[in-house]
Amino acid sequence: MEQRISLVTLGVEDLARARRFYERLGWHTNARPEDDVVFFQAGGMVLALWGREQLAADSGVEDRGGFGGVTLAHNVRSPAEVDRVMEEARSAGASITREVGETFWGGYSGAFADPDGHPWEVAHNPRWTLEPDGAVRLAPNP
Amino acid sequence: MEQRISLVTLGVEDLARARRFYERLGWHTNARPEDDVVFFQAGGMVLALWGREQLAADSGVEDRGGFGGVTLAHNVRSPAEVDRVMEEARSAGASITREVGETFWGGYSGAFADPDGHPWEVAHNPRWTLEPDGAVRLAPNP
Repeated sequence: MEQRISLVTLGVEDLARARRFYERLGWHTNARPEDDVVFFQAGGMVLALWGREQLAADSGVEDRGGFGGVTLAHNVRSPAEVDRVMEEARSAGASITREVGETFWGGYSGAFADPDGHPWEVAHNPRWTLEPDGAVRLAPNP
Repeated sequence: MEQRISLVTLGVEDLARARRFYERLGWHTNARPEDDVVFFQAGGMVLALWGREQLAADSGVEDRGGFGGVTLAHNVRSPAEVDRVMEEARSAGASITREVGETFWGGYSGAFADPDGHPWEVAHNPRWTLEPDGAVRLAPNP
């Protein structure tokens, strides 16, 4: 199995609402209004929004609701950019689940939840350099 | 907010067990045995394994256990490769949550759950061409 993820699908309750939230964050999709799944290009992969019930059934898992132990992160190039993106998220209607501040691992970050409760950390990690297209490459050796 | 994901963190109960599972799938990490978070390069982003309790606290969300409406997908270049990767997952100790077969959207896929129940779909989508490095690029216009 190659070491990569092609797609992260977030199960949502109201597709139009979820789509609107990501669009308010400045994301663009070519999905048509009637599509029942919304794909966003996200770097070299895809973020999809789909009905949560359908996603659970399709994944062959039971869903009792709530958080499932998965957090997405969006790394940026400076602490100031963390502040800016967190403000964008707040304006787009996110719940701020952790206000920005210095972290125990030596970075600076905050966290928000999208309208379906999916958490995102917005982080500046001084030890990770982002490539011009935003890709993160870990050092080949520690 | 740029249209990309830097990191997907999976909350796990037993870090050594989770790490071993992804290593059995053929993934490589430079994490040291004593590290409390395990990072895997995954294309232009990173997959992290971290204690689920710590992840929930750090994300500022409540965790009542179970699935949380997030499924990862690994797209491959042919139906035969779906079969092969699903067999690798089975051998690595995954639970098969959906056996391989043709899908309602015209592709071929199966799904498995890792030892912490995080579901992955392994899919061939004849409408998506993978780049040589495995990246997925949606058509700029529908």
